[in-house]
Amino acid sequence: MKNAQIVSIVGKSGSGKTTLLEKLIFELKQRGYKIGSVKHAHDGFEVDKKGKDSWRHRKAGADATLVVSKTKTALIRDEDLNLIEKMQKYLSDTDLIIAEGFKKQSLPKIEVFRLASNHKSPLCMADDKLIGFVTDSDYQPDVPIFGLEDFKEIATLIEDTFLS
Amino acid sequence: MKNAQIVSIVGKSGSGKTTLLEKLIFELKQRGYKIGSVKHAHDGFEVDKKGKDSWRHRKAGADATLVVSKTKTALIRDEDLNLIEKMQKYLSDTDLIIAEGFKKQSLPKIEVFRLASNHKSPLCMADDKLIGFVTDSDYQPDVPIFGLEDFKEIATLIEDTFLS
Repeated sequence: MKNAQIVSIVGKSGSGKTTLLEKLIFELKQRGYKIGSVKHAHDGFEVDKKGKDSWRHRKAGADATLVVSKTKTALIRDEDLNLIEKMQKYLSDTDLIIAEGFKKQSLPKIEVFRLASNHKSPLCMADDKLIGFVTDSDYQPDVPIFGLEDFKEIATLIEDTFLS
Repeated sequence: MKNAQIVSIVGKSGSGKTTLLEKLIFELKQRGYKIGSVKHAHDGFEVDKKGKDSWRHRKAGADATLVVSKTKTALIRDEDLNLIEKMQKYLSDTDLIIAEGFKKQSLPKIEVFRLASNHKSPLCMADDKLIGFVTDSDYQPDVPIFGLEDFKEIATLIEDTFLS
């Protein structure tokens, strides 16, 4: 299968990444695209909660555990792939993968920088993978700049860059 | 990829399915096999917990959401496959898939029936997919019968039936 394009929404904690991501997913779904999303988590993430049967299977040594219901599938496994390889392995049947975070990966990025989040400066001013900047500040990196509510315009940037 | 063999451990609630499954996974791993496990869950299962960022992505319409950490991968998606197709899609790179439950599926089954669980009778006396029966009762279906602690012998039955 062909690899899906990946774009990452980055920003410091409290900048509003998840909120922007929700709006972009919603907008791009409206436009007819199949969207995969990715969230980074710490190794102890709760998907694999202590004491649950699926956790007991894994603790006993299962290489992979699948939790299935009629409409949902959750797969829990350790594997020796880097983050981008995992995204491609599991989400390559989508039109676009939108990741939240992953600021250190070499992925096209859109940064959210919001004054109210009380961070002094943006993350990606010198990142040549930055393709868009979303802000209520006066920072002006040399990429298209959007206001915090401009999710339709940001979706269009994504569409023009990755989906056309 | 070749389909992995599937065996299901069935039994009424409280019969000790998870405990047996843990021991079998542990034992079969010791014998060098790559094991996938499967647990059935209700549609609202917590892997996809309300309010978490991954839940927000999905609620916004993401077709699939991947939660990744350095060593774990969890994939959450709705898909229009039956349970056995899902097991094969995600676990076909293992030597054996051990499922917990799925008594209605047409899968080779090992039933656990424990007197202390206060159920009147076993589930699978008339199931022609029954390949083993694990019990402290006097029921004697026409398949190999094991005691509750005989996990090594049960692992050998599984090995002889599916892995040799």
